[in-house]
Amino acid sequence: MKNNQFAQIKISVFQQQKELEKIGMITNDFFEQDFWVNLRTFYEHCFPESYSKTTKNQKIADILVTDLQDLSIVLQEQRVFTGEMFYNAALQLLRFEVDSEFSLTKPFYFMDQEQLSYLAIKEFNNEALLEAIYLLLTTHTKRGQTYLDDLAARGFFKDYFVNKKPHLVFFNGKAQPVFDSTKIIREVVYVESPLDTDQDGQRDLLEATIFRPAETNQGLRMAALYTANPYYKGIQDIRLDLHEVEVDLVIKSSSSQTAENLGFNGDNSEERKNLPKERIPAAQTEKAESMGTESGSYSLNDYLLVRGFANIYAGGIGTRHSDGIRTCGSKEETISTVAVIEWLTGVRKAYTNKIDNVEIKAWWCNGNVAMTGKSYLGTLATAAATTGVAGLKTIISEAAISSWYDYYRENGLVVAPVDCQGEDTDVLAKLCFSRKKDAADYAKAKDIFAEKLQELKKEQDRESGNYSAFWEERNYLKDIQKIKCDIIMVHGLNDWNVKPRHVGALWQALRKVSVTKKIFLHQGKHVYINNLYSIDFTDMMNLWLSHKLYAVDNQADTVIPNVMIQDNAVSEDWHVYSDWNDLKTPRQSFYLTAKFLSEQACSSTEIQTFQDKGVRLFRQASKDAKHWEQEFLQEKSLYQDNRLIFKTRKFEQEQIIDGTIQVTLNMAVDQPAGQLSMMVVDFGRAKRLKENADVLAAKGQELGYQWKKEDLKEFILEKEASFFKVITKGHMNFQNRLSNVRNETIKPHQFYSMTLSLQPTYYRLLSGRKLGLVVYATDMGMTIRPNIEAEYQIDLNGSHIDVPFL
Amino acid sequence: MKNNQFAQIKISVFQQQKELEKIGMITNDFFEQDFWVNLRTFYEHCFPESYSKTTKNQKIADILVTDLQDLSIVLQEQRVFTGEMFYNAALQLLRFEVDSEFSLTKPFYFMDQEQLSYLAIKEFNNEALLEAIYLLLTTHTKRGQTYLDDLAARGFFKDYFVNKKPHLVFFNGKAQPVFDSTKIIREVVYVESPLDTDQDGQRDLLEATIFRPAETNQGLRMAALYTANPYYKGIQDIRLDLHEVEVDLVIKSSSSQTAENLGFNGDNSEERKNLPKERIPAAQTEKAESMGTESGSYSLNDYLLVRGFANIYAGGIGTRHSDGIRTCGSKEETISTVAVIEWLTGVRKAYTNKIDNVEIKAWWCNGNVAMTGKSYLGTLATAAATTGVAGLKTIISEAAISSWYDYYRENGLVVAPVDCQGEDTDVLAKLCFSRKKDAADYAKAKDIFAEKLQELKKEQDRESGNYSAFWEERNYLKDIQKIKCDIIMVHGLNDWNVKPRHVGALWQALRKVSVTKKIFLHQGKHVYINNLYSIDFTDMMNLWLSHKLYAVDNQADTVIPNVMIQDNAVSEDWHVYSDWNDLKTPRQSFYLTAKFLSEQACSSTEIQTFQDKGVRLFRQASKDAKHWEQEFLQEKSLYQDNRLIFKTRKFEQEQIIDGTIQVTLNMAVDQPAGQLSMMVVDFGRAKRLKENADVLAAKGQELGYQWKKEDLKEFILEKEASFFKVITKGHMNFQNRLSNVRNETIKPHQFYSMTLSLQPTYYRLLSGRKLGLVVYATDMGMTIRPNIEAEYQIDLNGSHIDVPFL
Repeated sequence: MKNNQFAQIKISVFQQQKELEKIGMITNDFFEQDFWVNLRTFYEHCFPESYSKTTKNQKIADILVTDLQDLSIVLQEQRVFTGEMFYNAALQLLRFEVDSEFSLTKPFYFMDQEQLSYLAIKEFNNEALLEAIYLLLTTHTKRGQTYLDDLAARGFFKDYFVNKKPHLVFFNGKAQPVFDSTKIIREVVYVESPLDTDQDGQRDLLEATIFRPAETNQGLRMAALYTANPYYKGIQDIRLDLHEVEVDLVIKSSSSQTAENLGFNGDNSEERKNLPKERIPAAQTEKAESMGTESGSYSLNDYLLVRGFANIYAGGIGTRHSDGIRTCGSKEETISTVAVIEWLTGVRKAYTNKIDNVEIKAWWCNGNVAMTGKSYLGTLATAAATTGVAGLKTIISEAAISSWYDYYRENGLVVAPVDCQGEDTDVLAKLCFSRKKDAADYAKAKDIFAEKLQELKKEQDRESGNYSAFWEERNYLKDIQKIKCDIIMVHGLNDWNVKPRHVGALWQALRKVSVTKKIFLHQGKHVYINNLYSIDFTDMMNLWLSHKLYAVDNQADTVIPNVMIQDNAVSEDWHVYSDWNDLKTPRQSFYLTAKFLSEQACSSTEIQTFQDKGVRLFRQASKDAKHWEQEFLQEKSLYQDNRLIFKTRKFEQEQIIDGTIQVTLNMAVDQPAGQLSMMVVDFGRAKRLKENADVLAAKGQELGYQWKKEDLKEFILEKEASFFKVITKGHMNFQNRLSNVRNETIKPHQFYSMTLSLQPTYYRLLSGRKLGLVVYATDMGMTIRPNIEAEYQIDLNGSHIDVPFL
Repeated sequence: MKNNQFAQIKISVFQQQKELEKIGMITNDFFEQDFWVNLRTFYEHCFPESYSKTTKNQKIADILVTDLQDLSIVLQEQRVFTGEMFYNAALQLLRFEVDSEFSLTKPFYFMDQEQLSYLAIKEFNNEALLEAIYLLLTTHTKRGQTYLDDLAARGFFKDYFVNKKPHLVFFNGKAQPVFDSTKIIREVVYVESPLDTDQDGQRDLLEATIFRPAETNQGLRMAALYTANPYYKGIQDIRLDLHEVEVDLVIKSSSSQTAENLGFNGDNSEERKNLPKERIPAAQTEKAESMGTESGSYSLNDYLLVRGFANIYAGGIGTRHSDGIRTCGSKEETISTVAVIEWLTGVRKAYTNKIDNVEIKAWWCNGNVAMTGKSYLGTLATAAATTGVAGLKTIISEAAISSWYDYYRENGLVVAPVDCQGEDTDVLAKLCFSRKKDAADYAKAKDIFAEKLQELKKEQDRESGNYSAFWEERNYLKDIQKIKCDIIMVHGLNDWNVKPRHVGALWQALRKVSVTKKIFLHQGKHVYINNLYSIDFTDMMNLWLSHKLYAVDNQADTVIPNVMIQDNAVSEDWHVYSDWNDLKTPRQSFYLTAKFLSEQACSSTEIQTFQDKGVRLFRQASKDAKHWEQEFLQEKSLYQDNRLIFKTRKFEQEQIIDGTIQVTLNMAVDQPAGQLSMMVVDFGRAKRLKENADVLAAKGQELGYQWKKEDLKEFILEKEASFFKVITKGHMNFQNRLSNVRNETIKPHQFYSMTLSLQPTYYRLLSGRKLGLVVYATDMGMTIRPNIEAEYQIDLNGSHIDVPFL
C-alpha cells in the first residue's frame, strides 16, 4: 500500500502551535510544561472515546513502543523517549499492526515504504513533540484519512462549542468537523427560475434541498456546496424508450454545411421572450415548511457538511417537485442550474411552497458557492461555470460532459456511451423527467413534454449523426471564455461512458482562460475517487474549498499539482505533471504493413480486407458488449474475419503515451456508406490494474462523529493475468471523413484517406508489450449495428498511426 | 414483483381504532367526525415531511385519483369517495407509479398481482375508512417496508414523546420506531466471565458494546437483542496460515473407535477447576466510561433499536479489548457468549473498565434477551441456546453451524466451506484473535494462544478427518435437550459455506424439544434476508420479538408459518409448509446404468471408470473454485475424464425434492485410500434464479427517522440462460464408508458399497429437466487435492440414488 498525500501543507512551528492550541490538542503553556506531562496529555487526547483516566490509560497500555515496553510504562518511568518510540506508537495510532504490518525495530523503514511523513529526530523533547504531533495529525491512517479526521470521527470535537460561539475551524489549511451531525437542518425551498419551460404561464419553481449545520441558526454564515443532480428525486424506467440500434447506416446526401452557419441562436430562445413576470412575495420568512430528504448524496459533500459547508441539491427543471420539463443539456437546463446559485447569492427569489408566495432567503449563506458532482451532475457544474455567474467560486467537475455531441455522437456516427446502447438526448430527458412520479403533477406537463420529446427526437437526428445547431447549443466549450471560476477536473482514463475526450477538450479549451485549473486522471471508469486509499483527494478538495470559499491562506493553488495521473501499470502510484494532452508532444508514426505496425512505411499498394458481419454472431451469442470486446480481441476469435489487427514488435523500452493518438487510413468499402471503428490495444500477458476499485474496508471511512460512512477502496492488480487491454478507441462515418457537419459522397470500392483522432489518454506501455491497432466497422457496444453486411479494405500504403510519446 | 406478507395480523375493528388513536393517526372522535374531515386529516398525516397546510396540500394535489381529478380536488368537492379512489391514492402513497406500474382504472388488478391487501368496499364512509387506513399502514410499500415504517422514516413519530413519558408503542403487534435515533447511547462495559482462558490468574473480562435509546435514562426498561460477534472488533489476516490442500490422502490404519467412547469430558475442563475468584466490586455506577463504536452492526438490530430493543454486541474471549483467547467453537466460547446474557439478566457482574472494579449493572434492561446473527454469530446464538440459560427467550439463528465437524469435515474427509480452502479451527481461531490488533495486549496472551493453536492443530487432526472428542465438544446437537428458548432458523439452500446440513440436523434434533421453532429456507448463499422485497422477514421478526420479549399478544407463534421455503424456479415465491426434511418422505430410486439414471436397475455387473487427475489441470488453469465447477459440469469439459455423469430422462412432470438425497455406490479405487465426491444437478437450459440477490434500490430501506438505511434486494432470474444448477453435494472418505469415527481398510481395486447422505435440500425440478448425478473424487473447492493420481470405478450394479419427492 502506498500513501500519497498532497494536501499535507507545511507551515511554521509557531503557526503549528497556534493551530494545536486552537483545536485543544495542546494547552497554551505547552513549552513551559514538562515534556512527560505534554506527552501524556497528547496520548490521552488520542482516545476521545474513553471518558475516564483509567479507560484512556487502558488504551495507552495497549500500545507497544519497544518489544518489551508498553506506552503506559514508558510514560510512567519517564526515562527516555526516542523518535522510534514515538513512531512505533504513532503507527499503531494510525491503525497499522505490529508484526503483521511493521516491525517495532524498523518503524521508519515501514513509513518510508508506505510513504508516511515523519520527523527524523532521535530523542524527543517538547519542540520535537509539538512538530511530531502536528505532522501526525495531518498524516493518513490505514483508512486513508488524516489522523485528526480519525480522532474527530471518534468524538474529538464533540464538545468543541460548549460555551463558545460556533465558528469554522481550520487545521493545516483544512476545515474540521466541529459541527453537530445529529442536528443537521434539512429543508426545502422553491427557487423561482427565469424560465417557463412547461409553458403554464408561471415561472418554473425549482425545488432545492438544503442541509446545513444547526449552528447557522446561531448567526454563522456558511459557504454552499451545490450539486445539480437531475437524478436526485429518482429516475424513470426508459428500457422501452431506447432506440433500435440494429439499423442500417443511412446514406447521407452530400452537403455543404459549414461549422459557421449551423443556425444556432445563442442569444435567446422563443420561450424566454414570453417569460412570465416574477412572483411578488406576499411575506417573508426564515423558516422552511418542508423537510429535505436525502436521496443519493455525494460523500464528499457529506464529509464537508459537518466541516462547515452547507450542502444544496437540486434536480432542476422537470424533476420531481419542480416545475418545467427536461430538455437534456439545453440552454434552459443551464439557466435552471444557475438559478439556484443566484438564490444562494441573493439575486433571485425562493419560496417556502408553490402557492403562498412566502419568500425565503438563503440568509445563512455567505454568498460563496462551489459546485460538485460526477457525470450529468458534473456536466451541469461545467455548464454553470460557462455562464460566469457571480458567486460561483469554483467547480469540481467529475467525469463531466463538455459537449453533448461527444456523448452521443462521434465524427458523423451515432456512438453510444458504454452500456447505454440506444440512449439519446430524448431518452435521457425522459429518464430524468421524474415529475412523472407524481401523477397529478405529471398530468399538467405531460403534453408539452411529449411535444418537447418529439422535438428532441427530430433535432438530435439519429439518421445523420452530424454536428448541428442542436448540438452547438449543447456544447459548453463555445462559452469557455465566460468562465470566471477556478476548476478542478476529474476523469477516469477507463471511462467509456463520458469518454476522456470531454475532459481532454475542456482542458485544451481552458488553456486560454485565466482561471486556476487542475486535472486528476485516474484509472477507474465512471466513478468518484474521494474514497481511495492511495490519494488524499478529499483532503485536497477540503484545502481547495477552504481556500476558494473561506479565503483560507493555505497555498491550495500551488500545493495541488496541476496535473495528477494515476499510473496504469502498478497500484497506488500517482504521477505529477505540469500538463497533459499537450498538442505539441511529438508523435511517432507506425506504418501499417502486412499484419505489423512498423517504423518503416509500406512502399507499394497492399490491400487487406475485413468483413462487417459480426452483428449476426453477436445476436446469436446474446452476450453483452463487455463479453463481445473480450471475445473480439482474442487471437482466435469468433469475430476474427471482422477485424484486422496490426501489432508493433515488442517494445524494448517502456514508453508513455500522453495525449491523442491519430490514425490515418486509406480505406474503401463496398457500400455507399461505411463506419470505421478502431481500438489501440496493449498486447502482452500481465496482471494489469483492475478497472473497478476493490473495497478495502466496507464503511471504513468515517466522515464525521456519528455521521455517515464511506467504503475505503483502491485499484489493485487483477488476480489472473490478462492478455490485452484497450487503451483508446475512435469511430468515424466514412461520409464525415472531412468534417462532422458536412457529408461527402462515398463511392463503393473507392479508396479514401481518413484521419481520425482517438480519445485522448495517458498510458504507460511497459517494455515487452506490443502496441496494437485494431480496425473494424461495427462496435457492438457503441455504434449502430447494421444488418447489411459489408466488406472493408485498407490500402496499407498511406496508412499509419501517430502516437504521442512523452 | 410479488409481495408476501405474513406478519400483517388481523385484529378487531375496535382494536384497530384504539391503535390508530394511540399512534395519533386518528382522533378519538373519529366516528363523530365528518367523513371528509377524517379523510383530509388522514392524508395530511401522510406527509410528515411537510410542516404546513400548504405544503401538505401541495403533496395531496400531486396524487391522481381518477384520470381527471387529483386528490385535493376530490377532498375539496366532497362528492363521492370510492374504494377505487382510495386505492388509486394508496398505491401512489405506497410509491407505485401511475401508468408505468398500474392503471388508475384497474388498481385492484394491480394489487392482486402484487399481492397487496385491500378492503373491497365500493364507496367509503368512516367505518370503511378506518379499516382501510389500518390495513394500508400495515401494507408494504414498493420499498418492502410497511407504510407506517415509511411514514415513520419520514418523521411521523418525531415528536411522539413531547410531554409524554417514553414507552414502547406497538401497532399491529409490532414495535414502532418512536425512539430518538439522534440520541442513542453508545457505551462499553466489561463483563466478568467464569473463565480464565488466557491463564493470567484473573477471570476474563469481556467487552460488551451497548446501544440503547436515551429514553432508557428516563426509567424505561428495555429488552436486549444480543449479537455475539467474534468479528465485531475486526479480524486478522490469515492468508499465510491456511493449510496446504494439495496433499495426498492419508492411509488411515483401521480402528475400532465407536461413537460412545470418544473420550469427551462434557462436564468441565481442567482450566475451569482452577478458576480464579470473582473480582470484588469497589464501587457501583450507572454510567459507563467509554463510548461504544459501531463496526458492522446487523441492520435488523438497527431497525429494532429505535423501536425499543437495546442492541448488545460482544466479540467474546480473545477478541479486541476482551481478555482470553479464541478456541473456535469450544465449550469456553459458549460460556463466554452466555456470560453477557447473565450480565443482562443480573446474575453476573460487569465493570466500567478493567482496572478499577467499578461495577455497572444492566439496570436499563428488562431481563429479556434474544440473540441474533448469521454464521459464527448465529452459531454462538445456537450454542447459548443449548445451555438453557435463563433470560434468553429466543434466538434467531441464521446460517448457523450446529456441529463444527460438519463445517470443516465430512464423512472422514477434510471438506472446506466454499471459498475457505485450507481453513480449519486453528485458522479461524487466529482470524478472530483480534487482541492481536493491540500489540501490548497481545504480548500478554501470545504464548498461551500459541500453545492453544498447537493444541487445536493437533486435535482437529487434518490427517484423519474423523469425528472425535474434539469435534464432540463442538457439536451443539448433543445438548439439544437443554434448549429452553424458542428458535427461528434461517438458512440459504445455496449456502456452501455453512452448508444446509447444519440447519437440517438442528431442525431434526429439535423435533423432540418442546419449544416453538420456525424455519426459513431461502435461495441465497451465506446471507441475511431481512432486506428482501418479496418477504416481510423484518416484520415477522418484529412480531416474534415483540411477543417473546415484551409479551405482546400478537399471535406470533401461529401467524409465522413453521416452515417457509423460497421457490428456486421463479422469483418472489415463498411456500408455506408444516415440515421440511421429514425422514418419512418416500424416496424414489434411480439406478445407475450406462450413462443414465434409470428407474430400472442394472441387472449385471457393468463397470465405469473415471480418473482423479484434475489437480494438475486446475493448477494450470489457475482459476477459482467457481470457475472450476462451471468448467467441470460442461458437457465437453477439460475435466471430462475426471467425472462420470448419469442423467435421468427429462421429467415429464415437475417434482419437488424435499430433504436428503441418498446415494449408494458400489465403488473401487486403485489405491489403498480414496475420496468420493458427488453432486446432484438440475440439467436443462433455462433462466434460473440468481444465487446473489440484486440491489433493487441502494439504501432504499430506511430503518427509522434520520437513522440508518439498508439496500432493498431481491433474487431475480439470471439474464442469460444457464445449462445446469447444482442442487446438492456430498463427500466421503472410502475408509469411512461405515462410520465417521472408525476406519476400514481399503484394498485397491476391490469394490465396496457405500451409502452417502447428501446435504438436505428443497428443490422444485421443473418438467423438461433432467436430474443428474455427478460422481468424482477431488472437489477443487472443498476437498483436499491429492497429487497422487488415481483411477476410480463404479460397478453400476448395486448403485442407485434415492430421492425424496414430496
